Amino acid sequence: IYWGNELEIDERRITWRRVMDMNDRALRDMVISLGGVSNGFARQTGFDITVASEVMAILCLAADLADLERRLGDIVVAYRRDKSPIHCRDIGAEGAMAVLLKDAMQPNLVQTLENNPAFVHGGPFANIAHGCNSVVATQTALGLADYVVTEAGFGADLGAEKFFNIKCRKAGLTPSVAVIVATVRAMKMNGGVAKADLGAENVEAVQKGCPNLGRHIENVKSFGVPVVVAINHFHSDTDAEVTAVKDYVASLGAEAILCRHWAEGSKGVTDLATRVAELADGDHSQFAPLYSDDMPLFEKIQTIARRIYRAEDVLADAKIRNQLKEWEAAGYGALPVCMAKTQYSFSTDPGLRGAPVNHSVPIREVRLSAGAGFIVVICGEIMTMPGLPRKPAAQSIRFNESGLIEGLF
Amino acid sequence: IYWGNELEIDERRITWRRVMDMNDRALRDMVISLGGVSNGFARQTGFDITVASEVMAILCLAADLADLERRLGDIVVAYRRDKSPIHCRDIGAEGAMAVLLKDAMQPNLVQTLENNPAFVHGGPFANIAHGCNSVVATQTALGLADYVVTEAGFGADLGAEKFFNIKCRKAGLTPSVAVIVATVRAMKMNGGVAKADLGAENVEAVQKGCPNLGRHIENVKSFGVPVVVAINHFHSDTDAEVTAVKDYVASLGAEAILCRHWAEGSKGVTDLATRVAELADGDHSQFAPLYSDDMPLFEKIQTIARRIYRAEDVLADAKIRNQLKEWEAAGYGALPVCMAKTQYSFSTDPGLRGAPVNHSVPIREVRLSAGAGFIVVICGEIMTMPGLPRKPAAQSIRFNESGLIEGLF
Amino acid sequence: IYWGNELEIDERRITWRRVMDMNDRALRDMVISLGGVSNGFARQTGFDITVASEVMAILCLAADLADLERRLGDIVVAYRRDKSPIHCRDIGAEGAMAVLLKDAMQPNLVQTLENNPAFVHGGPFANIAHGCNSVVATQTALGLADYVVTEAGFGADLGAEKFFNIKCRKAGLTPSVAVIVATVRAMKMNGGVAKADLGAENVEAVQKGCPNLGRHIENVKSFGVPVVVAINHFHSDTDAEVTAVKDYVASLGAEAILCRHWAEGSKGVTDLATRVAELADGDHSQFAPLYSDDMPLFEKIQTIARRIYRAEDVLADAKIRNQLKEWEAAGYGALPVCMAKTQYSFSTDPGLRGAPVNHSVPIREVRLSAGAGFIVVICGEIMTMPGLPRKPAAQSIRFNESGLIEGLF
Amino acid sequence: IYWGNELEIDERRITWRRVMDMNDRALRDMVISLGGVSNGFARQTGFDITVASEVMAILCLAADLADLERRLGDIVVAYRRDKSPIHCRDIGAEGAMAVLLKDAMQPNLVQTLENNPAFVHGGPFANIAHGCNSVVATQTALGLADYVVTEAGFGADLGAEKFFNIKCRKAGLTPSVAVIVATVRAMKMNGGVAKADLGAENVEAVQKGCPNLGRHIENVKSFGVPVVVAINHFHSDTDAEVTAVKDYVASLGAEAILCRHWAEGSKGVTDLATRVAELADGDHSQFAPLYSDDMPLFEKIQTIARRIYRAEDVLADAKIRNQLKEWEAAGYGALPVCMAKTQYSFSTDPGLRGAPVNHSVPIREVRLSAGAGFIVVICGEIMTMPGLPRKPAAQSIRFNESGLIEGLF
Repeated sequence: IYWGNELEIDERRITWRRVMDMNDRALRDMVISLGGVSNGFARQTGFDITVASEVMAILCLAADLADLERRLGDIVVAYRRDKSPIHCRDIGAEGAMAVLLKDAMQPNLVQTLENNPAFVHGGPFANIAHGCNSVVATQTALGLADYVVTEAGFGADLGAEKFFNIKCRKAGLTPSVAVIVATVRAMKMNGGVAKADLGAENVEAVQKGCPNLGRHIENVKSFGVPVVVAINHFHSDTDAEVTAVKDYVASLGAEAILCRHWAEGSKGVTDLATRVAELADGDHSQFAPLYSDDMPLFEKIQTIARRIYRAEDVLADAKIRNQLKEWEAAGYGALPVCMAKTQYSFSTDPGLRGAPVNHSVPIREVRLSAGAGFIVVICGEIMTMPGLPRKPAAQSIRFNESGLIEGLF
Repeated sequence: IYWGNELEIDERRITWRRVMDMNDRALRDMVISLGGVSNGFARQTGFDITVASEVMAILCLAADLADLERRLGDIVVAYRRDKSPIHCRDIGAEGAMAVLLKDAMQPNLVQTLENNPAFVHGGPFANIAHGCNSVVATQTALGLADYVVTEAGFGADLGAEKFFNIKCRKAGLTPSVAVIVATVRAMKMNGGVAKADLGAENVEAVQKGCPNLGRHIENVKSFGVPVVVAINHFHSDTDAEVTAVKDYVASLGAEAILCRHWAEGSKGVTDLATRVAELADGDHSQFAPLYSDDMPLFEKIQTIARRIYRAEDVLADAKIRNQLKEWEAAGYGALPVCMAKTQYSFSTDPGLRGAPVNHSVPIREVRLSAGAGFIVVICGEIMTMPGLPRKPAAQSIRFNESGLIEGLF
Repeated sequence: IYWGNELEIDERRITWRRVMDMNDRALRDMVISLGGVSNGFARQTGFDITVASEVMAILCLAADLADLERRLGDIVVAYRRDKSPIHCRDIGAEGAMAVLLKDAMQPNLVQTLENNPAFVHGGPFANIAHGCNSVVATQTALGLADYVVTEAGFGADLGAEKFFNIKCRKAGLTPSVAVIVATVRAMKMNGGVAKADLGAENVEAVQKGCPNLGRHIENVKSFGVPVVVAINHFHSDTDAEVTAVKDYVASLGAEAILCRHWAEGSKGVTDLATRVAELADGDHSQFAPLYSDDMPLFEKIQTIARRIYRAEDVLADAKIRNQLKEWEAAGYGALPVCMAKTQYSFSTDPGLRGAPVNHSVPIREVRLSAGAGFIVVICGEIMTMPGLPRKPAAQSIRFNESGLIEGLF
Repeated sequence: IYWGNELEIDERRITWRRVMDMNDRALRDMVISLGGVSNGFARQTGFDITVASEVMAILCLAADLADLERRLGDIVVAYRRDKSPIHCRDIGAEGAMAVLLKDAMQPNLVQTLENNPAFVHGGPFANIAHGCNSVVATQTALGLADYVVTEAGFGADLGAEKFFNIKCRKAGLTPSVAVIVATVRAMKMNGGVAKADLGAENVEAVQKGCPNLGRHIENVKSFGVPVVVAINHFHSDTDAEVTAVKDYVASLGAEAILCRHWAEGSKGVTDLATRVAELADGDHSQFAPLYSDDMPLFEKIQTIARRIYRAEDVLADAKIRNQLKEWEAAGYGALPVCMAKTQYSFSTDPGLRGAPVNHSVPIREVRLSAGAGFIVVICGEIMTMPGLPRKPAAQSIRFNESGLIEGLF
């Protein structure tokens, strides 16, 4: 990003943050431009991780190169003292940025172990970004194949919600059917079993954890899309446990199908594939996003918090509410909202498993992504720049004595 | 780079700086880890540009992957309160770094417009880093070709001095002959002509500027290597001007050969090539670095400043002199020094053209590159993170209406 | 404050802030100890205004010099990595601090224009601190006079609440009667009249604003103390307006007495004084603080917010609630809470006049004043370091041509 | 100091630093105004200790209240982008500052143990400020007494040089005679004896240290003022040691008189007083400052460095030399220079005792004190904000069991 110093930019209101593709908690909050006149005007800012960048979101949402450049130009990088916005095109950077991203706009075609084609293109995380692969890749696939499967994970409360409310809305996509992937182990975990004890059979815990799955099913159905549950089989799962899940799903009027693709490859998911194709062909989908464009921004947040997270309320101080109103006044009121929330819970508390109710969703910060076309809503303690764990994976990665890389997994 | 928080690191003495491959003056001097306990301990640091990174230097100086990993492990990333060093291997990062650089260690083979093979591999700038391509590329080339030509530019006072004193010393290379590239325009500029007036014939200015070239010739000869001057012909150069350069070079007992490769391709440098091959075959080189390993560090700096820059003295306060002595005591006394100095002048003042004498070389900072194997000596106002000009090139780069990139040149 | 560098202080958890006796918004949030090893370890901190200092609170709450020194030693200045506290006495500073405050502990005896004795001693603001004059002054006065009147203002929701809940609780004081000072102008303002229009008679607005006064009366009564309202007469007040206030107060079963001390001196408040003395002698007071020592800290905050501010709820994220619980576990649970809140409204929104209900009280930060003996609870946008207005008063203060100071008022 | 935000102040060029009357190394270099829009524009700055403030210097140099206000208004607090200065009067602060200092301008009259009157007024340190008491006090004393003695210490290279070159020049004072105070112990220390061994007789060391005293004598004489040396007697001094000092001084054509005022009061300095009065009455003084107003600023610095410190050269990089030239161009060329240098040595190295020659004086920074009327020249490692020692004196100060203060000495 290239700054000019004039243009009446208010240095306190520069909203553009740098990004780096590495977890580095030290870069979250910093003061730059110290050391004297030639280093510029000191200001407080921070780095985000690359996947949380608005540029990544734009790459994934742009229809073509021209749209990419237009969106890059739409980015609001700062405000003046009078709070009028300064766009990326005002500093003349969008052209060079589009040129830099020229090759990145081409979807990467890869193949699975069984030689099925797949696009891997775009990487916004679903917890801190909008979580979907690129519109270009999806549209290309739709032009090439009869059935296109896309992944939108990190919890259906995050990945699916954003896929439906942001990507489908923006790109005019209408999904025919949704597959929710569940595991027996996850049910047990949501049922209160500690990680170390997940190997032992515990039907009761499975049953206790199922409401978490139930809520995902209800949530996805609330978008008008038929749902199938895929039980991703793990070698230690017992039949009784699998049955417990199936029974629970059936009790909600849905169907759960056991999948053994890890062990058996595509043969292991024939049942699922057949059922999904049936549903897709059956034209049962009555897809609609959860909220309309013209709902006020704060109500959009409340709608997601109440209907998807089942929170009682959204907590936001006057500063945040006023900021949303200012954006509405500036013409950004029709944008969808992109929630940044922990992937470990329906709530903002990573330790709150199961299907919690009566919790509240505190909003820490809101950020305008005018180029991507949404408002980022940062909830709870979630960070847009992760930190490293006590023992970073990098400490295990090295060449072994045969010169081969080890420690990657 | 991945930090653990224990190990008794003194946060004030963390010497490792992050790098970014972009000119960004705002990142030169900063305070990071603000914002509370979870973001770590606040400290003052800065970014360098990637080409100034010790990792880049190590990549260029490593003999092979094992040497690369060893050198990465040798990097001193911080000190304890008792001033004992903490190496990169103490934090367990060298293995992952070596793995990341695995592919980067392979020299890139490219071809010229006339299909001659060339390696382009490694990019340390000669003003703020050691300025040479990789040892791996050079060794590979020496194994493949009869004559290997390498580029070590940005002024022979920088590029050639470091090629001889650092790369040749480290890699055991013995150059047979050196070509100094000169232009009539550069002579005129050193003779005091303004940039806008370089087009007009001005033999007197050429003659006035030649002592700058003369000093480069003397400097390179002082390493015991035969010298040929290549006059890189520009269409506006007049015969009288070219003759003036030739005469001046001849007066120093050397030879200047006119080269027209820009206009005529390889045909335009046949004379030069023939002469260089003759000299190389003639075994006239008595190459030796300018200073021995066992000279004290500060004397090494003085030797370069006096014999190459022709400075009267080196200015360094007690803190810097003591730092050098501490490194000598810690076993780093045998390392060569890598000067960081403006490429625009023999002195540290970018405006001082020609062949200045009686100037002084102020040292602002010294940095230990224990992995690369040298001491960086930062002189005058040179920055290891450049800034952007008033109108950055990026503002001109964009797709034109035909979808082609324009503005790159 | 004098820091040693060892003692295992966690630099991120130094809680002690410096103070300066000047409004200076620039000092609210800063990074200090930059510039290298000899300037210490960089850390983020800030200045408060002197009146918000725990030292000021301790001066006002200490019984004598020995108690002063003990309380100064009790101050928690930082925490270790394991979150154990470091007290002021651990760094050996309390002795020197007590010596410095030796003279400051003596109450200042001044006299009124009519030569009545008065102590002016101690200056914690009632919005950001506990708002009462010193215990030493009050106890001295109680030993010298038959009736002691003390001022605890900035809104009875702040001054009176803290006088009762903090100072009376700590010093074992039992107030006999409370005088609430009201003005016709303030009623009009709370009734919605703009500042410029306060001069015109507006009985309706007075009536509309009276519920603000009514709530103060109820609040003070809830501490079990008899209440008299003193109407501080302003020359533009009309009889109808004064009567409106009197009627309103009477309707609540209390009495309002017109006071003309500004115009007439003590003669103007004879009625009030007589009534207050009657009430004091009548022994009607059944004083008790609003909450018991053993109520959990968060409930104490809720109690004040609901019963005094009439808020629906207190908003506090998990970090703040956990901090309160940690202090309870560390033995600070029995402390009272000292609310920092705007003096312009019962709510945390300075613009919300009258007697608002159904508002919420967001807590931004909590600070332990272990020496003073309370927990500071910072609500809404209130700052412990004020800023200067657009045109600071200092710009008007100067010597005039006669050498006299002008511009003070 | 009260900032307005407009006036085109370049935030990077605000030169005004805050002060605090406490040693606090953490405040030397900081970034303030963090935390968001309402806290202002982030910038790097620092605190000085109060005695180094330009306000303190102005108080000491002002002729009267009107002059005080004028000088306060002359302070340059910042620069614009075009480098034009912004004065204190541009922000309208000088009036209020003068009012605040009104009482401080009155000299404090105190008395000695023998009831002689003395003014104690103004406290700029002689190492980091101009080191003299107030002009007002001196002029008042000159109007009241026959002989006025003033103290200008911290080494005659600092205190006397500044008294002569700054205060006498500014206030038109003409000193009649100078007393240089010496101790046998100081001679021994300069002769290389360690602090712990100063008690033992060591005539040789005294003789070895005397050249330090000799240089002070020469220096003071070079201002044209007659010199007497006062030997401040210490109980452990031996006659042989005292004689050694006397002999040395005599060998330079001056006189040393033994003084026993510590033990005997004024009786102990009768000899000195008589001799001083004789010299003062004898009109031997031909006082002149060391340099003229119209000497270029850098030459003034060189003159002091060479003639007083006996340095070989002054080291200053281009930035500092250019800054001095800019101030000359802006009309500040006639100001004297106020050196900030360690008081422990004639050189900038605190460890270099005796009478060193051939050292160099590195200048780290220059600051314009346009109100005080001089340029501060910061040499070597001297700090304008001191730090505390490992064991601050404050740790020993406390009330003892009798309630008396102990630990002050």
